[in-house]
Amino acid sequence: MLDDEYYMGLALREAQKAYDNDEVPVGAIIVCENKIIGKGYNQVEQLKDATAHAEMIAITAASNYLGNKYLQNCTLYVTLEPCVMCGGAMHWTQVNRIVYGASDPRGGFSKLTPSVLHPKTQVICGIMEDDCAAMLKRFFQSKR
Amino acid sequence: MLDDEYYMGLALREAQKAYDNDEVPVGAIIVCENKIIGKGYNQVEQLKDATAHAEMIAITAASNYLGNKYLQNCTLYVTLEPCVMCGGAMHWTQVNRIVYGASDPRGGFSKLTPSVLHPKTQVICGIMEDDCAAMLKRFFQSKR
Repeated sequence: MLDDEYYMGLALREAQKAYDNDEVPVGAIIVCENKIIGKGYNQVEQLKDATAHAEMIAITAASNYLGNKYLQNCTLYVTLEPCVMCGGAMHWTQVNRIVYGASDPRGGFSKLTPSVLHPKTQVICGIMEDDCAAMLKRFFQSKR
Repeated sequence: MLDDEYYMGLALREAQKAYDNDEVPVGAIIVCENKIIGKGYNQVEQLKDATAHAEMIAITAASNYLGNKYLQNCTLYVTLEPCVMCGGAMHWTQVNRIVYGASDPRGGFSKLTPSVLHPKTQVICGIMEDDCAAMLKRFFQSKR
């Protein structure tokens, strides 16, 4: 079985695509039984759509793949702690596990609405945190 | 200037489309300077996508129309109080006004995460509340 660092590395590759498009670099991967069934990267500026977060795109892709609105046997990997919108979306999917890299003390769900997720959803944070945070830091420094 | 009841009536027409598709009947309309620039109805079951709430579909449509991720001069009408996911999406859009019909004491954002919206966003509730609630009640009664 491949481990969380492996999949977070793939989420980071998605984040790099956002970075290359001059978007806040966040990437997400959804895995079900060791198979990648959805992926996404932040496309808010490209699509001019505030809902086009990496996680939302990955959730829609995974749901399409499974033909199921529930992602109960899935793990969602994302390089940055999800926001309230994405946390709310994950609630509806009943996703089994969420693994995120960098924390987001300002916009992350865990501070703003800690009980938003489905009670069955397990949360793991800090996987490849330094790499995930470094990409975000590099992006915001280049904007100053 | 057309009033909130007029536009809520149009949101109810969207909700009826969801009802006719055997979906929880929720509909949304986004209005900018008296022009409808986005609409949507709940398509979660049809699309097998937990993110396909009426509001999310309407937000993406309105953003596409304007070519802008912000909906700062817009009013979003929705027949049911938005959930946390949709409230989070509205935060990102900085929508000017949210007008909703029926309250949702269990899943609505106002109880779970009252501060999720952008500080500039004005909220009006209870417009055509009885009609909005009646459609939902009829739907759930038909399921028993």
